[in-house]
Amino acid sequence: MVIDARRPPTGDDPFEEIADEYEAWYSTPLGSFVIAEEQEALLEAVAGATGRLLEVGAGTGWWSRILARRGFRVTALEPSSAMRRVGAGRGLEPIEWVAGTAERLPDPSEAFDVVLLMTVLEFLPEPGRALTEAWRVVRPGGRLVVGHLDALSPWAALYRRLGDRGVSPWTRARFVESDDVVNWFGRPADARRSCVFLAPGASPPFEAADRAGRLAGNAGALAVLRWRKPA
Amino acid sequence: MVIDARRPPTGDDPFEEIADEYEAWYSTPLGSFVIAEEQEALLEAVAGATGRLLEVGAGTGWWSRILARRGFRVTALEPSSAMRRVGAGRGLEPIEWVAGTAERLPDPSEAFDVVLLMTVLEFLPEPGRALTEAWRVVRPGGRLVVGHLDALSPWAALYRRLGDRGVSPWTRARFVESDDVVNWFGRPADARRSCVFLAPGASPPFEAADRAGRLAGNAGALAVLRWRKPA
Repeated sequence: MVIDARRPPTGDDPFEEIADEYEAWYSTPLGSFVIAEEQEALLEAVAGATGRLLEVGAGTGWWSRILARRGFRVTALEPSSAMRRVGAGRGLEPIEWVAGTAERLPDPSEAFDVVLLMTVLEFLPEPGRALTEAWRVVRPGGRLVVGHLDALSPWAALYRRLGDRGVSPWTRARFVESDDVVNWFGRPADARRSCVFLAPGASPPFEAADRAGRLAGNAGALAVLRWRKPA
Repeated sequence: MVIDARRPPTGDDPFEEIADEYEAWYSTPLGSFVIAEEQEALLEAVAGATGRLLEVGAGTGWWSRILARRGFRVTALEPSSAMRRVGAGRGLEPIEWVAGTAERLPDPSEAFDVVLLMTVLEFLPEPGRALTEAWRVVRPGGRLVVGHLDALSPWAALYRRLGDRGVSPWTRARFVESDDVVNWFGRPADARRSCVFLAPGASPPFEAADRAGRLAGNAGALAVLRWRKPA
C-alpha cells in the first residue's frame, strides 16, 4: 500500500509519477510491519503451490520478487511502462516482465499454477472481466489469489481522504469489501483471510497495536481471497 | 450517528424518510455506548456555561433534550419539517422548535450563550458560512461548539460505504478532519476532544474495545471543537 504519493499524474499513465517512490513507504517502521503482515497472508494463500505464477498488475514487482525467491517461475504483467521499468531494474530474481492489461491477458488458457492480483481490482474499470480472465489462465487444480483493500478498514478512510485531496492513485480507486469481489466473480472463495488491524495512526510496538485493532473491531486493511480451480 | 437508514429520500427533504427511525440505533448496545461517549464529550464542551443555547440542525432533538435537562433554555433550529415534527413530539423538555437553515439564522446577533452544531456541517453546501452565522449569534463571552464525524475514523469508512450504496443521508455527506473545520472558520479552536475509538465492528465489552481502538491508532469517530468569543 502507498500512502505518500502526492503528485498527481500528468499523462495517460497514472503511475508514471509515483513509480520511483512506490516502495519507499515499505521501509518506514510502520510500512515494514504492514508489509510483513501482508506477506504472511499472501504466502499462506499460495502455500503448497509451485510452478508458474502470473502476477496481474505487478506494479514495481514487490510481490513478484518475493514469490520468485520462494521458487515460483514468475511472470509480472503490468500496463504501466514506468512501473515495469522500475520493477525490471530491481532485484536479481529472474522475473519475466510483460506489458498487458488485466481485462485481456496475452497468455493461453490454463497456463499458470497460480494467478495473483494484489490491490489491482480496485483500479480497474471492469473488475469482473479481470477475474474471468485471470481464472481462464489458471490451470485445473491451480489457484487464483486476490488481495484487496477492505473498504471498512481505517486505511480505506485514509485513502478516501487522500483521494478527496487529489492524491494519486486514490482518486481512481474503488473501495470494496470481500463480498463485492465474490459477487463480481460469481464464485464463493474457498479461503479468506484479513490482516493489518492497526490504523494508519498507530504507534510502536505495532504487534500490540495490531492486536488492539482486532479487539477494537477494526476491519483488516488487506483481505486475501483464494479460489481453487477443480482439477 | 445513524447507521441503518437504508431507504433513499423521496423529495426535497433528505431526512423525511428517516426521521422516525433516526434515534433507534441509540438504543442498541453499541449505539448506547457510542452516544454516552459522545454525550460526555459534548457536556465537557459546554461545562460551566448556562443560559440560552441554540442547536443548529437539531434533527429530532436528541442533543437539545439532553441540554434542556441540564438547564439550558434551548432553541432547536431544523430545516426538515419531518425532523421537527418527530422532535417536537418527543420528551417533555421545554424546547423552542424553529424552522430555518444554518446559513441564514433567524436570530439577532449575540443572542445565545452557546451555539451548537452536532454533525451538521458535513451536510451543508456552505459550511464556512454556517460557522460565520453561528458565531454571529454567540454573545461576547459565549461559545461555539462543533461536533463532526472524523474522516479518518473507521466509522467514516463505514458511512462512505453506505453512501456508495445510496444510503441516506451519507450520499450527501462531506468527510472532513478537524483542521478542515478550523480552516473553514478561519479561527483556531480553543479546545478539541475526540471520542469513540472503537470501530463499528466492535464486540462487548465496549469499554475495552474503545481503549483498544486508541491503542490501535484509530481516529475517534466524533471530534468536538470549541471556540470562546472574547467577552
